[in-house]
Amino acid sequence: MRILVLGGDGYLGWPTAMYLSARGHEVHTVDDYLRRRAHREAGTNSLTPIAESLPARADAWHEVTGYRVGVTEGDLTDWSVVEPLFRDLQPEAVIHYGEMPSAPYSLISREHAVFTQYNNVINTLNVLWAMRDFTPDAHLVKLGTMGEYGTPNIDIEEGWIEIHHNGRSDRLLFPKLPGSLYHASKVHDSTNIEFACRVLGLRATDLNQGVVYGIETEESRLDPRLATRFDYDELFGTALNRFCLQAVIGHPLTVYGKGGQTRGYLNIIDTLQCVELATINPAAPGEFRVFNQFTEQFSVNDLAETVRRAGAEYGLDVKVDHIENPRVEKEDHYYNAKHTKLLDLGLKPHLLSDTLVESVFAVIERHKDRAIASAILPKTKWRPGPLVKETVSD
Amino acid sequence: MRILVLGGDGYLGWPTAMYLSARGHEVHTVDDYLRRRAHREAGTNSLTPIAESLPARADAWHEVTGYRVGVTEGDLTDWSVVEPLFRDLQPEAVIHYGEMPSAPYSLISREHAVFTQYNNVINTLNVLWAMRDFTPDAHLVKLGTMGEYGTPNIDIEEGWIEIHHNGRSDRLLFPKLPGSLYHASKVHDSTNIEFACRVLGLRATDLNQGVVYGIETEESRLDPRLATRFDYDELFGTALNRFCLQAVIGHPLTVYGKGGQTRGYLNIIDTLQCVELATINPAAPGEFRVFNQFTEQFSVNDLAETVRRAGAEYGLDVKVDHIENPRVEKEDHYYNAKHTKLLDLGLKPHLLSDTLVESVFAVIERHKDRAIASAILPKTKWRPGPLVKETVSD
Repeated sequence: MRILVLGGDGYLGWPTAMYLSARGHEVHTVDDYLRRRAHREAGTNSLTPIAESLPARADAWHEVTGYRVGVTEGDLTDWSVVEPLFRDLQPEAVIHYGEMPSAPYSLISREHAVFTQYNNVINTLNVLWAMRDFTPDAHLVKLGTMGEYGTPNIDIEEGWIEIHHNGRSDRLLFPKLPGSLYHASKVHDSTNIEFACRVLGLRATDLNQGVVYGIETEESRLDPRLATRFDYDELFGTALNRFCLQAVIGHPLTVYGKGGQTRGYLNIIDTLQCVELATINPAAPGEFRVFNQFTEQFSVNDLAETVRRAGAEYGLDVKVDHIENPRVEKEDHYYNAKHTKLLDLGLKPHLLSDTLVESVFAVIERHKDRAIASAILPKTKWRPGPLVKETVSD
Repeated sequence: MRILVLGGDGYLGWPTAMYLSARGHEVHTVDDYLRRRAHREAGTNSLTPIAESLPARADAWHEVTGYRVGVTEGDLTDWSVVEPLFRDLQPEAVIHYGEMPSAPYSLISREHAVFTQYNNVINTLNVLWAMRDFTPDAHLVKLGTMGEYGTPNIDIEEGWIEIHHNGRSDRLLFPKLPGSLYHASKVHDSTNIEFACRVLGLRATDLNQGVVYGIETEESRLDPRLATRFDYDELFGTALNRFCLQAVIGHPLTVYGKGGQTRGYLNIIDTLQCVELATINPAAPGEFRVFNQFTEQFSVNDLAETVRRAGAEYGLDVKVDHIENPRVEKEDHYYNAKHTKLLDLGLKPHLLSDTLVESVFAVIERHKDRAIASAILPKTKWRPGPLVKETVSD
């Protein structure tokens, strides 16, 4: 298939491009290096050294495997970038990772909030309009997030829910309670994409993805130049990846608040499987399909305990700190999210195990001299006011 | 109360500013003349002649009544406009009409779609951030639309719905199925405002308003310079107002498709009552409150029949045409939307009657030489492709 990978320079975008290229698809990537710029602004960086640009990555991929991946360096909010991608390349599938991906980033300041929603909403609108005009039969595979749903007190269904009310019923969109203005931007995208399917007749799969962990894929291991980025900082790092780094460098694991916050998680190699399954099994014309893309639920305390246990096995003395929660979120709540649709398509999950955690430790250890410890603690609060560090040892 | 009226130059914004000013509130209006510009671009205009600017309106209001209304001419997507409004004026209530208000406008082209969502989402984000930083206790009264809900097959509740699912239940946001990218922009706003209440602790009332009809208010009648605008064109005109104009100028009433499309409607003087009721009875801190703001439900066919009957009484020979529907919408559907919360606060509805319609005819007649008949028929289609005019006389 001819596949566009938007956001092809990211943590997941680049491994996805390689994975699909290795499986015989014609892959073209697009990126404007938004994440690299945000890291430079914050004085942080990926733990893993990554090639200096997307063309450099594509060249290395060609040298190592013989496969070619196309590259466009450009901003998807700019129509003069988007139009030729669709008009000339005529993609059959569009995998859209090309967004600002961080909840705390969206709450640093008004400017960051506005940038996040501008970037994500407008670039997705451009993509939808390009599909409408140039590739109306193409399939959009859009990366959403489980964070769109928040933590309702009922089971979370996959995008749609049958509601029985006053003696009548209808299948409607599952209500969303996003946890940040970044998560809200993905809710806006879901609203626009559902409209584009229902009214303009496009086809799309919204992948409400859980938190991804892991550092290597089959393809990224082939050559150091093919490594993907690994973020552990307060803005772009996520719970399990950050805990693994903290364990290796001897930093206490930073659990925000009580640690009962429960979310869906998945291994990076399952992200690749899921995205491929959604792509090769497209939605029907006019269909807005939603998959909850994760394999297991954990609380933050579960993750901390897993990392502590694996650390002990590996020879690390891991401490767990509960620090003041910079976010406004429930720390003790019901959480039961359905996730059967990707399994029905053939997903074979790689579940979290102590062995997996230890293999992540090993890769982190190779790069631990690059870790910037001062980038780890949260500085961005959801509500205005000073952050008082109230550390309570576990 | 100190009240900011955002979008104070519009069809409802200007009458609201006068209404609140006449009741002793300290009113400051803001507008960037977006609607006037859109009319100039399209070669159309308000049927009623309106004063040349917001300062001219405020001057006339002062001359006629002795009351003063403050004015800022500026764009709410520009933080240098928004910041001083909140920092210096310290409003206690913010009535937000300041958005691009047209469904067909949002679907003219990609540029119009992007402008609509950019303008509406970013200016509301600016307002929320200004409230967070400068007036956290102020109450936001935001004009949403009943069109956010679409036409689900269950009763439409006021913003929130108790969902019972798999033996558990929660009060969640009512699912939305917006009918255009304009309506979607208001869904995005609702998502952001609910977040701002739940997470940032702001207070807001989202008024999901029905279609407003009428041409005069108690204040607008005082002097010709105080008239509000009256739109009947394909972009900014709405069903009942357009039908009244068509009846007076001898144009067949243009019913889109079968005409079974049912929506909530209200008189412009009830809009003013509702907005005042929401303002003087504010939401609690942290509360996201939603009112469905309309007084009666009608199908398009009901409206056409009312106008035909009132026309006959008035001496007009009114024809009804069913033309091809340029929109993608259900033309025959269940519709039952709750609207008791404003009644509970004391709303006294002015229901639609033949007499009211005839009084609208009379005002239109005074200005009928200004009507541009070529602006009436729809040119903007929801789905790409030529619009074939298939007229079937009723």
